[in-house]
Amino acid sequence: MGRVQILSRMRNGNSISLIQYLSFSLTSRRRLLPLSVNRYSMASIDKMKDPLRVGKAIRAQFENDIPRDLPLEKDFREGTSYTITSHVNELHAQLCPDKRTLEIFTSLVNHLHAFAREVRPSHSEWEKAVEYLTRAGKESTEFKNELVLLSDCLGLSALIDELEHPKPEGCTDSCEPGPFYTKEFPEIPSGSSLAKEGTIGEPMYFSATIKNTKGEPIKGAKVEVWQADGDGIYDVQYPNRTEANDRARIIAEQDGTVNYRGKLPTAYPIPDDGPIGDFLKALGRHPHRSAHIHFRLTAPGYDDLTTALYPSHSPFLGTDPVFATKKSLVSDVAEVKDSSKWTEMGFGKDEVTTGRVWHWKYDFVLASEEEVEALQKKIASSSKS
Amino acid sequence: MGRVQILSRMRNGNSISLIQYLSFSLTSRRRLLPLSVNRYSMASIDKMKDPLRVGKAIRAQFENDIPRDLPLEKDFREGTSYTITSHVNELHAQLCPDKRTLEIFTSLVNHLHAFAREVRPSHSEWEKAVEYLTRAGKESTEFKNELVLLSDCLGLSALIDELEHPKPEGCTDSCEPGPFYTKEFPEIPSGSSLAKEGTIGEPMYFSATIKNTKGEPIKGAKVEVWQADGDGIYDVQYPNRTEANDRARIIAEQDGTVNYRGKLPTAYPIPDDGPIGDFLKALGRHPHRSAHIHFRLTAPGYDDLTTALYPSHSPFLGTDPVFATKKSLVSDVAEVKDSSKWTEMGFGKDEVTTGRVWHWKYDFVLASEEEVEALQKKIASSSKS
Repeated sequence: MGRVQILSRMRNGNSISLIQYLSFSLTSRRRLLPLSVNRYSMASIDKMKDPLRVGKAIRAQFENDIPRDLPLEKDFREGTSYTITSHVNELHAQLCPDKRTLEIFTSLVNHLHAFAREVRPSHSEWEKAVEYLTRAGKESTEFKNELVLLSDCLGLSALIDELEHPKPEGCTDSCEPGPFYTKEFPEIPSGSSLAKEGTIGEPMYFSATIKNTKGEPIKGAKVEVWQADGDGIYDVQYPNRTEANDRARIIAEQDGTVNYRGKLPTAYPIPDDGPIGDFLKALGRHPHRSAHIHFRLTAPGYDDLTTALYPSHSPFLGTDPVFATKKSLVSDVAEVKDSSKWTEMGFGKDEVTTGRVWHWKYDFVLASEEEVEALQKKIASSSKS
Repeated sequence: MGRVQILSRMRNGNSISLIQYLSFSLTSRRRLLPLSVNRYSMASIDKMKDPLRVGKAIRAQFENDIPRDLPLEKDFREGTSYTITSHVNELHAQLCPDKRTLEIFTSLVNHLHAFAREVRPSHSEWEKAVEYLTRAGKESTEFKNELVLLSDCLGLSALIDELEHPKPEGCTDSCEPGPFYTKEFPEIPSGSSLAKEGTIGEPMYFSATIKNTKGEPIKGAKVEVWQADGDGIYDVQYPNRTEANDRARIIAEQDGTVNYRGKLPTAYPIPDDGPIGDFLKALGRHPHRSAHIHFRLTAPGYDDLTTALYPSHSPFLGTDPVFATKKSLVSDVAEVKDSSKWTEMGFGKDEVTTGRVWHWKYDFVLASEEEVEALQKKIASSSKS
C-alpha cells in the first residue's frame, strides 16, 4: 500500500490544525445562488443542513451557498460500459455552467484517462509525476517558469502556436519568442549596428527582405530583433547591463529590406538546473539550443510573425529542446573575406579584426490577415467534418 | 501576441543575472559517457566545441559530457503526415535510454497533443493552465498537496487505484485512503469503543464480517479503522490532540467478525481554499465528501483492501469531489431505539442520551492474492490483444 505510506509520510506524524483545515470554510463565503437553491426540495436542503449528516465545516458554508448535489445512480467499473471516465464526464455535463469549460475538461478527462489505461502507471510512477509537478511549481520564479519549460519540451507550446497561428503555403514559419523578449527596443536605422562597442563575437552582417505572398515588398514593416552575443549570452543576462544591446527595432525600407551589422550569435542552453533538466536527462536529451536570432515582424494588414532564424553551421538543429527549430528557418551563413565588401556593409576600417565578416541573408514572407483568417476557417471546417 | 506580453511580464523589466542563468552549467558536471562520445566523429565534437558556433555556457559542460545530437532532416507541419507529434516521438525513440520511460512519454505526447488538437486552446487558456499548475505547486504544503487533489478531482487517482488493484467479482471495492491515515493505530479488542470519552457525535455501533469469496470467515484479519467524529472532524485536526482517537486496529474474531462502538461520522469538505477550490467552482462542483468510515484490511494470503463505507442517509453520495464513493460501499444505517439492544452492543447505562444508537453493518469480502494475480493477467492479456 504505497499510497498509504506516502500520504502518511506527507503528514509526517504532525497534526493538521483544526484552524488550518477549517479556515477556508469560515472565510470563503460565497454569493447567494437562488437558482441552485430552487433545484432542491426543502427536504433535500434540510438533509444537507442536518448536523447528524453534515459536519461543522460544510454547514458553515451553507449560509450563503447551497451546493448542487446529485444521487449516486450507477456504479462505475473498469471493463464495463460505465467506467469512471463516463462517471466524471456525466457529472461535469450535469453541473458545469460554462460550455467551453465543459468542452475542455471533457476532452482532458478522456485523454488523461486513456493515457492512464494505456501505460497503467504504478503508484510510484504516479507519485513521481505528482512530485515533479509540485517541484516544478515551487521552483518557478519570476525569471523561469518550469511549467512553461515543460510545455515547451513536450512540444505542446509549439503545437499550440502552430494551431493558433497557421501559416499559409509559402509564408515564413513562426516559432515562440522565448524568455529574452523585452519591451525595450531602441529604434535604429536599417544598416546601422545592433551591437554596442565591445560586444563579444565575430562581425556579422544580416540582410533580409520582407515581402507578402505576391512577392511585393512591405515597406515600413516593423522588425524587432533580439539575439545573444558571440558567447551565447543576452544583454539582460549581464549583471552590469546599463542599456539595451543586441536588440532593436528597425523599420523596413521602401524596397522592403532590413539590414544590420552585429555579432554572430552562438548556441546556449535553456536553464536545466531545475526539474526540466531531470526531464531532459531521463529522455536522453540535452538542453542546448542552436545559435539563432529572434524576430518579431508587424505591419498593418499582415498577421504578426514571431520567429527565429538558425545558421546551418550550428549543432543541435535536430535536437532543439523546445522544438522551435524548423528546417525552413535554417540558412547558410557565408564567410566574406573581401574587405571591399565589408566597407559596403558599413563596417569601419578597424572594426573587422578577424579577417572575415559573416553574411546572413533571409527572405521573410508575411501572410495577410485575410489569408490567415481564410486558412483558420478552412482548418476549423475540416476539423469539424 | 499574448505570449510575448506574458513572457515579457514574467521578466518584469528586470535583468536575469548571468550568475543566476549560468550557475547550473558550472555546477552540474556529469559523468563521462563514453558511449555517446563514440557516436560522433571527431568533426562533430569539434563543431560542438567551436566557440564560433557554441557559447560559453554549453562549452563549460563539455568537459565531461558530450550531448547526443541529431541532424534536422524533416520539417514538421500540422495537416501533413509528419507533425510535431511525430517529430517529438521520433526524437525520443532515438535518444531515450529507458524502455518504460519511452513508453510513458510516447503515450503522454500522443494524448497531450491529441487533447490540444481537439480543444485548440487559445494562448490565454494555455497561460491559465500554466498559472494553475504553478500555483498548485507553490501552494502545496506538508499537509495538503494540490497536485494530489487535482489528480483526485479529475478521477485519475481512483482510476489508477482501480487499474492497479482490480477486484474480482463479488469482492469489496477499494477506494483511496485520503489524507487522514496515520501510522498510529492503537490495538483495541473487537466490541470495545473506538471513541474516547467526550468525543462529539451520536452513539453508533459498527459490526462487520470479513470473508473470502468462498464465504469462509477470515479469522485474525487486521482491520485498521479511522473516521471523523460527529462534527466531521478527525482527531489529527484538533490542535489540542494528545492521543489517537476515532482510529484503531481491531483483529477479527474466530468467526471473522469485527465490531466497535463509536460515534456516527458526518460529511466534511476537502480543503478548497487553494487552486482546487477554483477548479471545482469552475465545473459547478462542491468540495463536500459524504460521511464515511475508512478501513484498511490485511490478512496473510489476501490482497490488501483499502476502502471506505458510506451511509445511505448522507448527502453528496453522487457528487463526491474525489470519486471514491461507489454504490457497493453505501449501506443503510439503522436507528435502534430498543435500550436492551444497546446493552447487548456494550453501551453503558448512561452512554446513550439521545434515545437511539445508529447500527451500521457491512460484510467485507477479500480477494485472495491468487485471484487478484489471475485477474491482472487476464486484464493484461486482453489489453494487449
